[in-house]
Amino acid sequence: MATVRDVAERAGVSIATVSFVLNGTKPVTPATRERVETAMTELGYHRNVLARALASRRTRIIALVHPRLDHRFGSVTSEFITSASRAARARGYHLVLWPVDTDGDELGELVSQGLVDGVVLMEVLLDDARVETLAGSGTPFALIGRTADPAGLIHVDIDFDQSMADALDHLQELGHREIALITARQPLPEYGPKVRSEAAYHRLCSERGLRPVLIDCEPTVPAGRSIQLPDATTAVILMNELAGFGLLSELARAGVDVPAELSILSFGSPELAQIASPPLTIMRAPGATLGGLGVDALIDHLENPELTPPPRLHPCVLEPGGSTARR
Amino acid sequence: MATVRDVAERAGVSIATVSFVLNGTKPVTPATRERVETAMTELGYHRNVLARALASRRTRIIALVHPRLDHRFGSVTSEFITSASRAARARGYHLVLWPVDTDGDELGELVSQGLVDGVVLMEVLLDDARVETLAGSGTPFALIGRTADPAGLIHVDIDFDQSMADALDHLQELGHREIALITARQPLPEYGPKVRSEAAYHRLCSERGLRPVLIDCEPTVPAGRSIQLPDATTAVILMNELAGFGLLSELARAGVDVPAELSILSFGSPELAQIASPPLTIMRAPGATLGGLGVDALIDHLENPELTPPPRLHPCVLEPGGSTARR
Repeated sequence: MATVRDVAERAGVSIATVSFVLNGTKPVTPATRERVETAMTELGYHRNVLARALASRRTRIIALVHPRLDHRFGSVTSEFITSASRAARARGYHLVLWPVDTDGDELGELVSQGLVDGVVLMEVLLDDARVETLAGSGTPFALIGRTADPAGLIHVDIDFDQSMADALDHLQELGHREIALITARQPLPEYGPKVRSEAAYHRLCSERGLRPVLIDCEPTVPAGRSIQLPDATTAVILMNELAGFGLLSELARAGVDVPAELSILSFGSPELAQIASPPLTIMRAPGATLGGLGVDALIDHLENPELTPPPRLHPCVLEPGGSTARR
Repeated sequence: MATVRDVAERAGVSIATVSFVLNGTKPVTPATRERVETAMTELGYHRNVLARALASRRTRIIALVHPRLDHRFGSVTSEFITSASRAARARGYHLVLWPVDTDGDELGELVSQGLVDGVVLMEVLLDDARVETLAGSGTPFALIGRTADPAGLIHVDIDFDQSMADALDHLQELGHREIALITARQPLPEYGPKVRSEAAYHRLCSERGLRPVLIDCEPTVPAGRSIQLPDATTAVILMNELAGFGLLSELARAGVDVPAELSILSFGSPELAQIASPPLTIMRAPGATLGGLGVDALIDHLENPELTPPPRLHPCVLEPGGSTARR
């Protein structure tokens, strides 16, 4: 089989020049490029990942499986996708995107084709048919998110307990004691982030002697306008960005000053936080971190199958804005 | 080479059952799955896309090349990616994501590896090094967007001329004659959507006897707060979503009623439009349409290399909101 050295000799150029042509790392003149390409053709030189993949039974392709994305706020999703894609590239893998339904059928068909070395699954449900499909397929996989019982599964996720504790800490340090939680009603019955956050809120309120007020409304601006807060409430933890904008506009209309009369701490995206008035203090999801960690955990396992990387949980990060203040 | 029929006979099950195991399309009992898998192993049956790809010299993988996505509003990008991914799947291809720098070097290295049948390039610059790289590589490619002179290149794009004409039509039909255009300053000197939209605005104003007022500011909320509109202006076409939110909050502070005193028509996303107060009338980018069309054009060409699909230009679509009104 022809080598790069053979190609260089035949074309009468240096090995470095062949490499430039192959990798596009430096410009070469059209004439040189043609000489190198002719030599490669004559010698039957191929630098083909497929042939290597077939020989090694590894494709160095991993799939990022996510639900259909339309009509969602994209910034956190984009962060996940970009960071996953970058982490894969950094380790010599390619990331394929598979937007598939959550029932597992389509996913089962895809993994059976032998294209990918492994799968990273996003937006994991507490009871997730896709996890069953993957476990049954023998394809290595990692979760960004968690099922109800993720023991033994490779996964990374937001640390909802720590995030909620940090959110309450921030508000309590500002003197708040009457802190309501507003979450989003979900079409899916068992959505981990909601279930885990609400459980953490109730547990922490109980531990800290706070009165829990949980309001669960549709994730729409009009639903937010209709939110009725108890009179005693001085601070809100928001896990429903769209309703938050409705709430803010209704508070402005009613002459309630944010943050002087009501503090709002939102689990949300920096992009939306900055366009709110006032700009929101947020707990920012570690999307970029988790996308990369999920891919890294999977590749660690692919490259050392005896290894099951331990779960990695990362809390959301407080980013101060103008919507929280001392009571 | 063993067939599905051979596997079914050896396992003592129907061909359909083997197919369920292979494709995961229906649940089978663990015992049946094991019988089928044992038969496949014993017969050396593989349903492997790589072997097929190597035999055909086609991988049925196409790459979607986009710049790094962090810190951007993701919804239109997500629409592009999802629709491209879905269109590829519908035609039996896999979409790989390549977030690479715009200089073309990294892209040249990737295409030289022989992994993909073709490339779809997003966020095309008027003078784009990646297009040179792709043209030099011999890899088939399609653009979502356009270089300054896209003749001969497979491309789909927003029809900026038609979109601007439709935007002016909407405002002129409401009686407006003093219509300013607010665009976003770009770090990249030659960004097609901005250059083409500004040119269309100037041409159309000239043709229609309107006075052009072009304001170009940073894409930030504070920059929007500082926008000074001429007193005569009764309507604004906004191509700078973030500045738009700054402008809206400043107008609210100054007691200017939108849309009674000033109409705002925004080239923007429906997600941000609905959280503005009032909800914005928008010209919505046909992201989902273009992602799919770009992939389809590339695959049309891959499957019939003599064919260069004609350019497809689609205008943005007016979605009425509460920010434009009769003068």
